[in-house]
Order: sequence, then structure tokens, then C-alpha cells
Amino acid sequence: MEILEKYPPMIEKRLDELMECIPVCAPEKICKEAMKYSLSAGGKRIRPALVCAFAEMAGGDLSAALDPACALEMIHTFSLIHDDMPCMDDDDFRRGRPSCHKKYGEAVALLAGDALECYAFEVIACAENLSHECRSSLIMTLAKAVGVSGMIGGQTIDIGNEGKGFSEDVLFRMYSMKTCALIRCACAMGCICGGRSDLVKKAEEYGEALGLAFQIVDDILDITSDTETLGKPTGSDREQDKATYPAVFGLEAAREKAAALTARAVQIAGEFPDNEPLISLTEKLLYRVK
Amino acid sequence: MEILEKYPPMIEKRLDELMECIPVCAPEKICKEAMKYSLSAGGKRIRPALVCAFAEMAGGDLSAALDPACALEMIHTFSLIHDDMPCMDDDDFRRGRPSCHKKYGEAVALLAGDALECYAFEVIACAENLSHECRSSLIMTLAKAVGVSGMIGGQTIDIGNEGKGFSEDVLFRMYSMKTCALIRCACAMGCICGGRSDLVKKAEEYGEALGLAFQIVDDILDITSDTETLGKPTGSDREQDKATYPAVFGLEAAREKAAALTARAVQIAGEFPDNEPLISLTEKLLYRVK
Repeated sequence: MEILEKYPPMIEKRLDELMECIPVCAPEKICKEAMKYSLSAGGKRIRPALVCAFAEMAGGDLSAALDPACALEMIHTFSLIHDDMPCMDDDDFRRGRPSCHKKYGEAVALLAGDALECYAFEVIACAENLSHECRSSLIMTLAKAVGVSGMIGGQTIDIGNEGKGFSEDVLFRMYSMKTCALIRCACAMGCICGGRSDLVKKAEEYGEALGLAFQIVDDILDITSDTETLGKPTGSDREQDKATYPAVFGLEAAREKAAALTARAVQIAGEFPDNEPLISLTEKLLYRVK
Repeated sequence: MEILEKYPPMIEKRLDELMECIPVCAPEKICKEAMKYSLSAGGKRIRPALVCAFAEMAGGDLSAALDPACALEMIHTFSLIHDDMPCMDDDDFRRGRPSCHKKYGEAVALLAGDALECYAFEVIACAENLSHECRSSLIMTLAKAVGVSGMIGGQTIDIGNEGKGFSEDVLFRMYSMKTCALIRCACAMGCICGGRSDLVKKAEEYGEALGLAFQIVDDILDITSDTETLGKPTGSDREQDKATYPAVFGLEAAREKAAALTARAVQIAGEFPDNEPLISLTEKLLYRVK
């Protein structure tokens, strides 16, 4: 069964359950509502699905991987909430709905992002199906991927990405941190959940190639797609004069690069056991339209 | 030796070391600088000192408590950075220096706060002097204290605290979450580091009383002190028409309440072994001028 069909329904269900576990009273309830609003906005759930897929390929139990997978999706959602805020990308829409700060105001959106960030770590620390050693290892891996050497570092580089001619090096560094860090992390977390730390390095190589291809396709869609299909305004990169692979090297070169990276990801995926669903996912992401 | 003399120097040193551990390159370096700027801004280091003090009272090893103590201070610092931002309290100064967003801009301040939040969890997950079970327990305790049922929930209530007559109940709920959550957590984390989970409940009762007294004294100082002594503008609560204990019940009643809560904290402190430094700290915080 396809990765993006098999896992997302159970991820949605578990995300709902995990949010229901948080006790709140009326005065602070709005913050939890904002967390749920953004978390339930949909999206492809690629990162948590990768955690589950790699956990199963590593011979692990899906039930043990589900909470870490949801934690990773909380982190991804927190980063989107903060990224959309006026002081960052200033995006009014996300997945076809008003972004969190447009719906709840900036203060609540800021706090909802903060709360999702720490709840992710709480969920892993409490994951009863995993050994304490495994929980430490997952939290370490996730926190490194999120921090200033990972996703947040990439967002920092992106702040400076306005009207500037980034070198290819800096552009790829930004992609590798801002986008690939969490995707690499998803693959690594899956292996750790499956008790196969020896597979982490190869899984991260796959995640890096997939993440780069994914981001370049994202940038191509920002140029070629329309708002209705994408669920968010297109052309925002050009509007903000952002350096992206297609903006710097042209659409044709970008398509070739994305295809080459996908081929590389497929090659690495081939080294894992029971790899058909992973290879199918990898190829599908190259040809997606949103 | 006094708690606020004994532990802060080693906390400062370890915070510096932990920040040096983060590998960054030039493009994202500004984010790490902002983290260090806010983390090194001083402050009394009460929360991490409490972690150390409770760890020693619980018969634990100070070296095991130092990293969790630093993690808690990172969380406290992240909350101050975000709290000072224009969409929150909009404070230009913190501890006598420009606040993080005034120095580095809002986007970097937002990301520096986010990065400190996750680095705190990474530091605990990597703490080699602690068992993996202890690390899980500390992360669980810390994340609960930070989240929407704790500090962040308290900040959410505080957002609505403008020009509104809060009931005493809501006021104390806000204090208990916004201020006491991390102080309770500090005392609990110390007990966990010392291997005495059985002391956590009593330590939290102490933290609650101390935290409430501490916040009421803070609110009194906002009315009675001057900017130079306090290192931040005074009168900001009145300016923003915020409900605080002294604003609602008057200075005299606030002083009495703070004294009664301090007496209660001293009483609970007396039930711990080797409690003289803790009792001395508790009384000193009541009579502080900044």
C-alpha cells in the first residue's frame, strides 16, 4: 500500500488523541485551539509517514513509531506557524485557510507555535512503547534537526534571502537545513524506532536527496502553479525576490536537478528491505502538482 | 554558602560551554549570537540555582544537575525573548539592555527563542551523567511546565490581561502558570536529578508558594521601584492597565500576601534536609529591591 495512503489516517487519529490529552481551562483554551487549528490543516503528512515507513522497513513495530511521528509533525506545524508570521514570511494563507496569526492574532500564534514545539518533546518523552534510551536518542536527533544547526538555522539564512544573489553553495545550505533537516530526521527517527541505529546514516542520505528534490519541486510549483491548486498564493518567492533554484538557474535546470536528486534518492531507497512503497513515494513527489 | 552565590558562577560557565558546542557557519551565525546575547544578559539565575540546590538536598550529585539546570534557564530565556516581542508585551529593554528583537530584529529574535527552546531538550537528552530514565522524566516534567497547561498557558491568559478586571481566581491561575510553573519545575527537576522522585510533590508545593510570592514582589517593584534599579522600565503594568495583585488589592495587601506566601514557603522548606540555604534564599527574595 502507498506510504501516503497507509499512514496518514492513523497519524491524523493519533494527533487528535494527543491533543485531547492536554488539559486546559477556559482562560488559556484559545492557545490549544490555535494549536489544533494549524495541526489539523491537512498537508501531506510526509514527514510522519516517513517515520512510520522507515520504522517498518527497519523491522520495528508501527505502534512504537506513531507517537514520534506525530511529534515530528507538531514540530513541522510549529515551524509553519512561526514562518507565516508578519516578521517572517508574512503569509496570510496556508493550505487554503487563513494562517494561524490571521485567525487567532499574532500573540496566540506565537504561543501556539511555542507550545507545539515543546509538546513534541513531551510526546516522545512519554512514549510508553519505547525504551528510555530510545526516547533520549529520538529527542536528541529531533532537537538537533530543529535547532540552529538545522531547520531554524535554515530559516535564519532564508531571512537574509531577499533581493540577494545567493551563491549555489548558500542556496543548497539553506535547503539542506530549512527543508532537509526534518526530512532526514524523519528517516533517522524511523530507524531508531525500529531499533536499527546502524541504518540511520543511509536513511539520512536518502532524506537529504529526497528533501532537496522536494524543495526544488516546491519552488517550481511556486512559479508554475496557481493559488487554487496549491492552496496558498503562488509567485510569493518572486514577489519577495527570493533566491530559489529555478529563479537562479531557470525552470529547465531546476526540473533536471529535481529529477537527478530523485534518481539518487530512489537508488538509496533500493538498498533498504521491502523498498517498493518508498521508491513509489519518492517518484511520486517529483511529479506532484501541489 | 548562599544559593544565589554558590551556583550561578558554575551555571554561567556551563551555559557558555553548552553554547560553544553548537556548530554554526557564517550564514546562520546571527541566530546563535542572539541566543547567546539573551542568555548572557544576567538575571539572578534563580531557576537553575533551585535545580542545583534541590538536587543536593535530595542527596544527588551537583555535576548531574548542572545540564538540566542550564536547560531550564534556556527555557526561561526563550520565554523572555518571545514575551518582549511587539506582538506580546512590546518591551524594548530587558535587564538594562535592548531586548533581543531591538538588537537583532524580530525575525531573528523569534528564531533565537525557538532555537533555545529545543536546545534545552537536546541538552537534557544528551546529559551523560544521568540515566536515560531520568532524562525522560526530566524532559516530561520540563515540557509539561512549559506547555499550554503551564507557562505558555499563563502567557496566553496574560494576553487577555489588558484593561480587564481579572477575578482573584484568574489572577492566581495566571501567576501559577506563567511564573510558578517553571519555579515548581526547577524544584521538581532537582529532586529527579537527585534520584528522589518521592520528594517531587513537596518540592512543587514549595515552588508554588515561592513563585507566587516572587511574582507579587515583582509586581510591587514595578510600581515602587525606578528604571535604573530594576534594569527595565517601571510602571509598565499600569501603563498597559494590567491586573496584578497590588493593582487590584493595593500595595499594603500585596505586601502582606507576599509575606504570608514566603512564610508558607519557609515552612515547607523546613521539611527538607540541610535547608538553611533554601530558607535564607526564600526570605531574601521577599526583601529584594530588583
